[in-house]
Amino acid sequence: MRGATHSTFYAPVEAELHELERRLLDVGRGGHATFQAAVRHLFSSPGKLLRPTLVFLSARFGTVPDREIVLNLAQSLELVHTASLVHDDIVDRADVRRNVPTVNAMWSDDVALIVGDYLFAKAYALAAVLPKPEVIAIVAQTVFALCDGELNEVTMERRLPTEDAYLERIELKTASLYAACCQGAALLADAEPEHVAALGAYGTSLGLAFQITDDVLDVAGDEADFGKTVGRELAEGMATLPMIYAVDETGDRSLGPRIVSPGKSPEELRELLRIIRDSGGVERARERALSFHDDAVAALAALPDRPERDALREIADFVVGRVR
Amino acid sequence: MRGATHSTFYAPVEAELHELERRLLDVGRGGHATFQAAVRHLFSSPGKLLRPTLVFLSARFGTVPDREIVLNLAQSLELVHTASLVHDDIVDRADVRRNVPTVNAMWSDDVALIVGDYLFAKAYALAAVLPKPEVIAIVAQTVFALCDGELNEVTMERRLPTEDAYLERIELKTASLYAACCQGAALLADAEPEHVAALGAYGTSLGLAFQITDDVLDVAGDEADFGKTVGRELAEGMATLPMIYAVDETGDRSLGPRIVSPGKSPEELRELLRIIRDSGGVERARERALSFHDDAVAALAALPDRPERDALREIADFVVGRVR
Repeated sequence: MRGATHSTFYAPVEAELHELERRLLDVGRGGHATFQAAVRHLFSSPGKLLRPTLVFLSARFGTVPDREIVLNLAQSLELVHTASLVHDDIVDRADVRRNVPTVNAMWSDDVALIVGDYLFAKAYALAAVLPKPEVIAIVAQTVFALCDGELNEVTMERRLPTEDAYLERIELKTASLYAACCQGAALLADAEPEHVAALGAYGTSLGLAFQITDDVLDVAGDEADFGKTVGRELAEGMATLPMIYAVDETGDRSLGPRIVSPGKSPEELRELLRIIRDSGGVERARERALSFHDDAVAALAALPDRPERDALREIADFVVGRVR
Repeated sequence: MRGATHSTFYAPVEAELHELERRLLDVGRGGHATFQAAVRHLFSSPGKLLRPTLVFLSARFGTVPDREIVLNLAQSLELVHTASLVHDDIVDRADVRRNVPTVNAMWSDDVALIVGDYLFAKAYALAAVLPKPEVIAIVAQTVFALCDGELNEVTMERRLPTEDAYLERIELKTASLYAACCQGAALLADAEPEHVAALGAYGTSLGLAFQITDDVLDVAGDEADFGKTVGRELAEGMATLPMIYAVDETGDRSLGPRIVSPGKSPEELRELLRIIRDSGGVERARERALSFHDDAVAALAALPDRPERDALREIADFVVGRVR
């Protein structure tokens, strides 16, 4: 069952999404029993499937939207996404994701490491048979970007990053995959070069808006979710945009070191959350997300007026409008 | 500097190996600084390079041995091999490999996880542009086999495996990659089907002979290397062929549980090594390795008589003749 099933933007591509969900559950076939069990665990609640939805919608702007080939790209990129989450959860020592136990929590770090390798391999095997080398290159570039972003995180010095450094990190870790979905699908379906470029720009802005919104929710979400979906980045000492803006807004130079320090007490965590929420940094970050949303919507103007374009605009609205 | 540089089997393909070493050191270019440093660390002492040597020699039996394409396959499979070692060293908590600190020891488990992902991605990017889909499929199948073998290891029950279960594990973890090098290169170079099959059979037998020899050296190697290159598998409770044979030869049913138990004292470890060495199990495992060596050499009979065939035979001799 997808989350956000009330959303209308799925409507034009329901059939493809249904087929994709079936194929994702089938990825374990023929593999080791533990891999099969992990695949069932990962894909029986596949989440919002925003990335494949972007693939299917974007392919509609092409002249040759071959259903089978587009499905392969969607599955490949969703597997890249899932593999990177499985590996990130090891690095982040995360026990749950979207209220579901992570692979490392259900089995072990060792199993999660190999399951991630397996999923990456399945993703590449699907990408390798795509008929356009430039789309295969996009998939590979996306994985390099994810690795660069993750290496940035694990080797980061314990100090507050600049806004630019933050934006570079989320472009690598989130927006590059969104851009690959939109641009790759359009290329694969032989869309006009200007439509390919517009969809790539849309995907990048959408991904940035998505990640900033996630980071806003992490500090501004409901207190009832404290420690689960709220305050996690802060607890880890991972500085996000609302925190960077909070330091700037308050002018308090002691705030940066407090934010990035690891092993905070629950009291310090609550105190910091209060300071950040009171600073105006959250509102400023929300506005930044909205400006990327507007960039995404503006990029769509280059596309022909079709139901799929409306759906892409709805996705942009949905991404910044999420309450959780 | 390659180990075993005195060996003559490198001679026919020295030029390709030299170019490959240059390209391996260049894999980090454009990547994150930590990835670049890890690549320099991994490839400045590239080891024996047996796998690429097999690729270059096997391609010579084709009718169209395109140098650039064959180099891409060799680099791709060497990167697959290196990536899987980097990830295995995390799972095995290994600090050194061939007397060189592992990536997890030099940096951290987190860095090693991402460096491995990066290397796999580079490997696939190279494989994806190979002109034959069946060779791309061989690379993907090899990664699935490595993952299956590794999942077998980490999910294995703590009991002595059968000889068949052991052989299946080393076929997945070692021999499949050797077979891919030989068979993939021959396919890529448009060799005759019977030569492709012969090289595939040679690679599988060679890989089995190689791994059994490794496992023999782990229990029978020089006492001076105890704890470094000797006794490691036994310390981990990882049962190998000489141990399986030792249980069979002695008829001592308490020996199996002692071998697979983790956290042995140094005294218990030395005692077990002595029992295994005295049992005749080591000699029997060595004979098994030699019989796979003979199978490998026999498979070469189907190939035309050329210097490259002599080199492949020398590699088989070298693999079972290693002191370490």
